[in-house]
Amino acid sequence: MTAHHSVPFAKPSPETVATVVAELQKRFGNRAATGMAIREQHGHTLTWTANQPPDIVVWPETTEEVAEILKLCNAHRMPVIPYGAGTSLEGHVNAPYGGVSVDTSRMNALVAVHPEDLDCVVQPGITRKTLNEMLRDQGLFFPIDPGADASLGGMVATRASGTNAVRYGTMKDNVLSLTVVLPSGEIMKTGGRAKKSSAGYDLTRLFTGTEGTLGIITEITLKLYGIPEAISGGICPFPSVRAACDAAITTIQSGIPVARVELADALQVKAFNLHAKLGLPETPMLFLEFHGTEEGVKEQSERFGEIAAEFGGGPFEWATKPEERTRLWQARHDAYWSAFTLRPGAKTVATDVCVPISRLAECVEETHRDIEETGIIAPIVGHVGDGNFHLTPMIDVDSPDEMARMDAFLDRLVRRAIAMEGTCTGEHGVGQKKMKYLEIEHGPVTLEAMRAVRRTFDPNGIMNPGKVFTV
Amino acid sequence: MTAHHSVPFAKPSPETVATVVAELQKRFGNRAATGMAIREQHGHTLTWTANQPPDIVVWPETTEEVAEILKLCNAHRMPVIPYGAGTSLEGHVNAPYGGVSVDTSRMNALVAVHPEDLDCVVQPGITRKTLNEMLRDQGLFFPIDPGADASLGGMVATRASGTNAVRYGTMKDNVLSLTVVLPSGEIMKTGGRAKKSSAGYDLTRLFTGTEGTLGIITEITLKLYGIPEAISGGICPFPSVRAACDAAITTIQSGIPVARVELADALQVKAFNLHAKLGLPETPMLFLEFHGTEEGVKEQSERFGEIAAEFGGGPFEWATKPEERTRLWQARHDAYWSAFTLRPGAKTVATDVCVPISRLAECVEETHRDIEETGIIAPIVGHVGDGNFHLTPMIDVDSPDEMARMDAFLDRLVRRAIAMEGTCTGEHGVGQKKMKYLEIEHGPVTLEAMRAVRRTFDPNGIMNPGKVFTV
Repeated sequence: MTAHHSVPFAKPSPETVATVVAELQKRFGNRAATGMAIREQHGHTLTWTANQPPDIVVWPETTEEVAEILKLCNAHRMPVIPYGAGTSLEGHVNAPYGGVSVDTSRMNALVAVHPEDLDCVVQPGITRKTLNEMLRDQGLFFPIDPGADASLGGMVATRASGTNAVRYGTMKDNVLSLTVVLPSGEIMKTGGRAKKSSAGYDLTRLFTGTEGTLGIITEITLKLYGIPEAISGGICPFPSVRAACDAAITTIQSGIPVARVELADALQVKAFNLHAKLGLPETPMLFLEFHGTEEGVKEQSERFGEIAAEFGGGPFEWATKPEERTRLWQARHDAYWSAFTLRPGAKTVATDVCVPISRLAECVEETHRDIEETGIIAPIVGHVGDGNFHLTPMIDVDSPDEMARMDAFLDRLVRRAIAMEGTCTGEHGVGQKKMKYLEIEHGPVTLEAMRAVRRTFDPNGIMNPGKVFTV
Repeated sequence: MTAHHSVPFAKPSPETVATVVAELQKRFGNRAATGMAIREQHGHTLTWTANQPPDIVVWPETTEEVAEILKLCNAHRMPVIPYGAGTSLEGHVNAPYGGVSVDTSRMNALVAVHPEDLDCVVQPGITRKTLNEMLRDQGLFFPIDPGADASLGGMVATRASGTNAVRYGTMKDNVLSLTVVLPSGEIMKTGGRAKKSSAGYDLTRLFTGTEGTLGIITEITLKLYGIPEAISGGICPFPSVRAACDAAITTIQSGIPVARVELADALQVKAFNLHAKLGLPETPMLFLEFHGTEEGVKEQSERFGEIAAEFGGGPFEWATKPEERTRLWQARHDAYWSAFTLRPGAKTVATDVCVPISRLAECVEETHRDIEETGIIAPIVGHVGDGNFHLTPMIDVDSPDEMARMDAFLDRLVRRAIAMEGTCTGEHGVGQKKMKYLEIEHGPVTLEAMRAVRRTFDPNGIMNPGKVFTV
C-alpha cells in the first residue's frame, strides 16, 4: 500500500461557493438556507468546540435528491457535511472548509417493519426515541441507546452504542444493510434482509463508523428485538471504583445476561444529588438493568446482589415496576446535564475512551489522580461492561490557561487508554478532536489503509473533509 | 466509482513459477513441498469440485515469514492461496491459476487468554475444537461452530457461523481485531483489545469474509464466553416444515434466548436413521439447545415445549445431562456424513443459502417441490433462527446429464433465495461456485465498490485470484 503525502483539502473559491449555493437554492427553494443562525446551528455539537458553519444547509427528502446534491458538489469539489440530529460530541458536523450541510431530518420515515424477521427499514433522519415509539405497539424495540435522541443515520455514522451495548452490542452489530449515496452520486445497497451473509465484502460494516467520509446513508435496515417480558433495574453503592468494576466483571463472567451496567464515580453521584436532590450516598455506584422473564430478572437481580456483597458493595436496591425503575435510573439518564451543577456557567468538553475491562479500574483510578493533580472538575460515568467511560470536564472555555491544562489532561487520558490496549474513543467517534490519535492508536500501515479506502470511495476528498484523518 | 473492465488474472509463466518455487524451497527447505499428492490435497474441498492444485505448498511459522512469502509473490505476480484446514465448501482453496498455497497449520498457537476481558489471541491455524479444549479449564469457550473442525483463520476468512449463531452471532460479531499481512508484505493490525471502538474505519470487519483476497490473517483476537452453568438440549417433531419454522420464529420473537435451533427435513431424518439406526419418526424435526442457569434452561425448555404444541409439534424430548443431550443431538452433528447413506457411492455438491426467516418455510417448500420435479436426492438442514439452510444433494459427478440438471437446480435455488431478499450464501462463502451470483445479489454499483476495495489492497491481483469476484 503506497503511502501518500497528506495534503489538506483545498477550500473552494468564493466563486465556486457562490455557484453551488445558487444552484442549490434554485433546485431546493426553501429547503436550502444560508442564514447565519441556521448555518451556525448546523456546526454546533453538544460539547464545546469552536463553531465552523457551512456555507449552506439543504434538506433533501429522497435518496435521489441526495444523489443530485452529491453530484453537484463532486463536480465543483465542494465539501459535503452530512447532518443528522446534531448530537455528536467531537466536532463531527463542523465545516472547517465551509461547504454544504446535508440535513437528513426530513428523511425520517419508518419505511417498513417486519415483525417475524425482527427487522425494520428506516430513513436516516428518524431519531431513536421516535422509532421506539412507533415500534412499541408491535412489542418491538431497537436497543441501542447513546443517551441523546440521536438520528439513526448519525448513530450508524459514528458506530454509536451506549448503555445497552453490553447485552445488545453496538450499531455495528445491529445494522443489517445500508443504502448509501457515494460521492459520485451513485446509489449503493450494501446487502439484503438475510440475518447473515457470506456473499462478498462486508460493506455494511465498512460504512458503519465512517462519520460521513465515504458517502451519505439514506436508508438503514436495523435488527429489532422483542420488548422483554420483564425488566428489573437497580442501583448499588460500592466502597471503591475497583470494587464496582470487579463486581461487574464477575457478573459478566458468570454469564448473567445483564442488559445495562453503568458506573458513576463519587463526583458524578454528587452531581446527581445536586441536580435532582436524590440524597444518594456519595460513593461509586453501579446502575443495573436486567431483561428477561419475570423469573429470570428476579434470579439475575438476586445473583447480582450476592456478587456485589462479595466485593463489599450493597445494599442492592432493585425494582421491577416501571415507575420504581425510573426513579432509580433517572439520575443516570441525566448524567450529562447534571454535570453542569458542579460548576454553573461552565461549558464541557465531554469525551470518552475505552479499555479492556480488566484495565478499567486502573484506568479510572489513574485518571482520578490526574484530575486531582490537574485541579479540574470532571465527573466520570462508565459503561463498565464494555470498559468504556466518559468524562464531562467542566471548564471556562474563555480561559486560555484552563483550556491549555484541559488539552494536556485530555491528551494524557487518551494516551493512557491506548497504552492499556484500548482506544481513543469507544463510541463518540473521532470527529475533529481525536484525529491526531488515530496514528498513535493504529500505526502508520493501518492508517494508510484507511486513507486508501477513503481515496477509493471519494477521490476528490469532498466528504466531511478535516474529519477522522487527513487524506 | 469508475467501473473497470474485468480481465482474468494472467497465469504466471513457467519461468516465473520455477523461479518462485526455487526461491521458496531455498528459503523454507522441507517446509515447502511440490509433491502432487500434497498439492492436490491443498486444492481439495469437502464438496465435490474439479481439483486445481497449486504449484507449491509452504508452511510459514511466523507473521514475518508470511510477509516474506507475500513480498516474493507480489514481486513476481505469483498467485497466493491462503489455506487453513481445508474444510471450505465452495472451491475456496483451489488454485485455478496455480501459485503458492500458504498453509497456516503450523501457526496454531493460543497466544494469550484474558479471562477477565473474555478474549483470547490465537494464530490462524488453530482449529476450533483444539481452541475449546485449551480453554475448557478456565471455564471459557468460543461458540462459533460451523460443524467441521475448521481453522480460526479460515472461519474469519469465510465469515463462518453455524448452529450457535442465533445466540452468539457469526464470526463478524466475535472477532475483536486481526493482524493481517497485506500483499505488499506490510503487517497491519486492525484494532486493539477494547470491546468496542469508534476510532476510524472498521478494517476488522472489512477483512472478515474476504476469503483471502485482501491479505493473509496471521493473528486473531476473539471474544470468549463463560461456559454456561447449564445446558439443555432436545428434539421435537413437527407435522410440516412450516409448522417447525413458525414455532422457531415464535420462540425467538418471545425473547427466549435459544442457543441453537436447527431444522432437519423428513429426508434428512431418514438419513439420520440410516446412518445411526435412531428410529426417529421421519417427519420435519427441530433440534434445540438452551444455555443459562439451571432454572433458566428449564424455564426455556418448558416454554418452547408449549410453543411447539401450539403449532402441532411435539412431544419435545429434552434433557440437561450431557450424555442424554449428546444422544439427542448426535444425529444433527452427523448431518453432513449421514447424507451419504441416502445414495452410497455418490458425491455431494453441498451448498447453502439464507433468507429472512419469515420466508424460510416458503423457500424450503418451493425447494422441496423443485427437488421432486428435478428428481434428485437432497436432504435439507437449516439454522432456522437465521433463515439459513443447507442442501446436501447426492450426485454421480461422472454423469454429465446429472451434473447439468444439478447445476440448473442449484441455480434456481440461489435465484429463489435472492428473490426473497436473501443471499446466495449465508455462511459458506462465495469461493469459485457462487461468483456469478454476486452481481445478481448486489447489483453493479456494489460489486464495483468491492472490486475497487480489492484493487486498493491488492493492485497486482495476486490474492486468491479467480475467487469471490473477478477484479
